[in-house]
Amino acid sequence: MRVEVVAVGTELLLGQIPDTNSQWLGEQLAANGLSSHFHQHVGDNLERIVLAFRTALARADAVIVCGGLGPTQDDITRAAIAEVMNVPLVRDETIVDVIRTMFNARSRAMPDNNLLQADVPQGARVIAQSRGTAPGLICPIGQKVLYAVPGVPYEMTEMFERAILPDLLARQREQGERAVIKSRVLRTWGSSESALAEAVADRFTELEQSGRVTIAFLASGIEGIKVRLTARGDDDAMARALLGEEEALIRGLIGERLGDVIFGVDDETMEDAIARRLRDRDLTLAVAESLTGGLIASRLVNVPGASTWFRGGVVSYASEVKYEVLDVPVGPVVSPEAAQAMATGVRTLLRADVGLAVTGVAGPDPQDGHDPGTVFVGLDLEGAVSHVRLRLPGDRPRVRAYSAISALDALRRAIDQRDAPR
Amino acid sequence: MRVEVVAVGTELLLGQIPDTNSQWLGEQLAANGLSSHFHQHVGDNLERIVLAFRTALARADAVIVCGGLGPTQDDITRAAIAEVMNVPLVRDETIVDVIRTMFNARSRAMPDNNLLQADVPQGARVIAQSRGTAPGLICPIGQKVLYAVPGVPYEMTEMFERAILPDLLARQREQGERAVIKSRVLRTWGSSESALAEAVADRFTELEQSGRVTIAFLASGIEGIKVRLTARGDDDAMARALLGEEEALIRGLIGERLGDVIFGVDDETMEDAIARRLRDRDLTLAVAESLTGGLIASRLVNVPGASTWFRGGVVSYASEVKYEVLDVPVGPVVSPEAAQAMATGVRTLLRADVGLAVTGVAGPDPQDGHDPGTVFVGLDLEGAVSHVRLRLPGDRPRVRAYSAISALDALRRAIDQRDAPR
Repeated sequence: MRVEVVAVGTELLLGQIPDTNSQWLGEQLAANGLSSHFHQHVGDNLERIVLAFRTALARADAVIVCGGLGPTQDDITRAAIAEVMNVPLVRDETIVDVIRTMFNARSRAMPDNNLLQADVPQGARVIAQSRGTAPGLICPIGQKVLYAVPGVPYEMTEMFERAILPDLLARQREQGERAVIKSRVLRTWGSSESALAEAVADRFTELEQSGRVTIAFLASGIEGIKVRLTARGDDDAMARALLGEEEALIRGLIGERLGDVIFGVDDETMEDAIARRLRDRDLTLAVAESLTGGLIASRLVNVPGASTWFRGGVVSYASEVKYEVLDVPVGPVVSPEAAQAMATGVRTLLRADVGLAVTGVAGPDPQDGHDPGTVFVGLDLEGAVSHVRLRLPGDRPRVRAYSAISALDALRRAIDQRDAPR
Repeated sequence: MRVEVVAVGTELLLGQIPDTNSQWLGEQLAANGLSSHFHQHVGDNLERIVLAFRTALARADAVIVCGGLGPTQDDITRAAIAEVMNVPLVRDETIVDVIRTMFNARSRAMPDNNLLQADVPQGARVIAQSRGTAPGLICPIGQKVLYAVPGVPYEMTEMFERAILPDLLARQREQGERAVIKSRVLRTWGSSESALAEAVADRFTELEQSGRVTIAFLASGIEGIKVRLTARGDDDAMARALLGEEEALIRGLIGERLGDVIFGVDDETMEDAIARRLRDRDLTLAVAESLTGGLIASRLVNVPGASTWFRGGVVSYASEVKYEVLDVPVGPVVSPEAAQAMATGVRTLLRADVGLAVTGVAGPDPQDGHDPGTVFVGLDLEGAVSHVRLRLPGDRPRVRAYSAISALDALRRAIDQRDAPR
């Protein structure tokens, strides 16, 4: 199965927004053993969208179209599909009702142009909308198929997983292609891509011969480096077994060379790793943030059920807030002592078991004699106080984002170390 | 002049790296009045690269190819160009010398596969390399032209500005085309895409006739809806004038129908809008957050110079933190009264002029008798207390993100209203 992705929207051609959809779809298709040989971007112009669709249908078995399904005059993907399918657009009253109900639920009247979203090319199947007002479409064209989804990533990804991927895999099976592909991502923090690559270099070369399992390194910016293992088996059990063996081997190689850098698997985040440790030990947490300005707290509350272990935090952006609210001794606020005092201060104020604090220099100018990127993490684990000093690269937003995940990683390691057998 | 961008590299199709080159080139082309109707991604496969080039040449006047000019076996852009130009590749000894000198300067021997980078399709002009080892190419094909540059952004941008853009503009002048394109984005919050489209529907239809200015709507998720105006003038002054007139007109139409929903222009964020108002009035701000868990504070510190007006905040995630730290009367914590008490509490604790607070139900379960998505924003402007009730759609992360920007928008409107002439 060759799948081509066509992203629709003049804003893509003008470079006003990045095309994250094609990248995400490319990753998903590859992870599921589906080939993708071309992507296209095309603007909001009927004739050119039709040309892009026909070009894609000429060289692929399936086409995924993102964007142009909204309710406005420049959303013309539906009309272009009807042209390519050689059928009329027919208004679907069920969709009209769904959209009207959505507006009613928010106590808003439905503007008439939303009715456009209920127009369906004759012969197309509807992918019911669950997150936005635009439904998706599955459009058979001869032996081929064209899928259309909204360009909003949040709506696109949900529809892809729920409706498009199952349909693609069913078509692939019909064509007699049989390979089950399973992948697993090991998430790391605190090591470079090249160090990880070196740690597994020999195994990487071995695997290039066998062809059953592949390893890829994905630099994921502020979320660390991902090591993706992909196994291709004749059936599900074989793919799982290959993947399990490989994971154990790779974890061993990385742990031996680089220590405890793997913090999670697949979609697990650093905050998930923290949540698990705190829940297991029945500990509560409070955070005090300076340069991160609430980033750490906002990551922590993303974990479902955070209220059982997360008390809250103080964003002590102004120095006086550190002195007055967190009882930090008056003096330089970028120092190991200040970080520790913040951790103890917030732990006391919010009556938590553990206090985590961050203070440092986001830049661009130095502060308290420290260069931008200098960050101190303060820890107070039930009265046991410590600190970690970091040197982080990048501009303000990056220093801030790196500080947040680094502080959580420091807490992860501190908890593990405290509980390690001596 | 219609210019198509073709980005070469299997890593793009697999989604392993984002394609920032097409986005950057799209921006540059638009800014210089050059049309771009399509982009393509293609993998490192000779037959498919040739097909992508031919497809692009069929629908554009000029093609810019990024990537596949490196020294390894999978760098085959040069061979594909020779195929499309119907000429042989000829080794250019001048380029060999340049590359050898580069290696010598770093005291390294040149690996033989670097010689591949000296192969030039007969009839092509070389764009001398200045930042990497791969030269670029200018390849005339009949009346059309294909440019090839390395995929490394740092090398690509330099060659585009130095050699490709001047060549494109010269060709455009030869064709007698003269157009300068300018665009502006109006950023809105609090209105649906369809309501905005309806507000300007008549004007939209008028503009479709004239062809000088276009309007597009971009749903930008939690950042609201963007209204993009693009004007095409014979020269810079004309494009600016067209854009200025259209902006005034559209602002009028939107304001009349939907009120004060435009909060910024181009890259301005909601927090920029808040920062401007606070700075202008010499006010300081403190925030108290429950369900947003630090999101509001972390947005505010993104504004350069936030320390002059932002004091900090309290993330009162646990109810006891609201009672004990913020002096909220013991009782239900999802209520207008609690929101207002949080605003006053944090304003007092952090000694700020303005207190902004958010409490509500992120879901999935109801709380204090309120459904998920029920959110109360509390405001305390130098002692003047008020609240806003919101009903927000989506799952936990979305309710939280919408709450953050909605709270900032409520503060924006409250400040403007207080200062409005009566």
